[in-house]
Amino acid sequence: MLAKIHVTFKSGVLDPQGKAVHHALNDLGFNEVRGVTLGKYLEVRLDGISETEAQGRVREMCDKLLANTVIESYRYTLEPTD
Amino acid sequence: MLAKIHVTFKSGVLDPQGKAVHHALNDLGFNEVRGVTLGKYLEVRLDGISETEAQGRVREMCDKLLANTVIESYRYTLEPTD
Repeated sequence: MLAKIHVTFKSGVLDPQGKAVHHALNDLGFNEVRGVTLGKYLEVRLDGISETEAQGRVREMCDKLLANTVIESYRYTLEPTD
Repeated sequence: MLAKIHVTFKSGVLDPQGKAVHHALNDLGFNEVRGVTLGKYLEVRLDGISETEAQGRVREMCDKLLANTVIESYRYTLEPTD
């Protein structure tokens, strides 16, 4: 099973890295850029559990370690491997 | 136009952050985790260009700034906004 997880800032939370990338792109001449948000993308390989179990386990991983749920939100999908 | 960009390490490139997350998850009791890769996820808002132009511009942004193409690969999709 492969979990594909996106962790992004909640709207309204300051994203200084995104702002830095935005300015850098403008400085390089990409004037069509109006905004940038920068988040994390994780792929987690899971073994020996069912898809139903994985749903709950991945949520638990995000809540405990992968996302700071005060300022970040997450979403994930599960894909079969093999 | 909204560009959704994933930047990930090429296979074979050392991913120490991914390894650290993998070990942390195992330490927390998530023994079903077999591997973790950690990448970047960017959303770039673009204004005043066509989808055809955006295709090329986003590729240029990735090559010039957003990805280190020696060790990272990228992929992106474009979505209409408004």
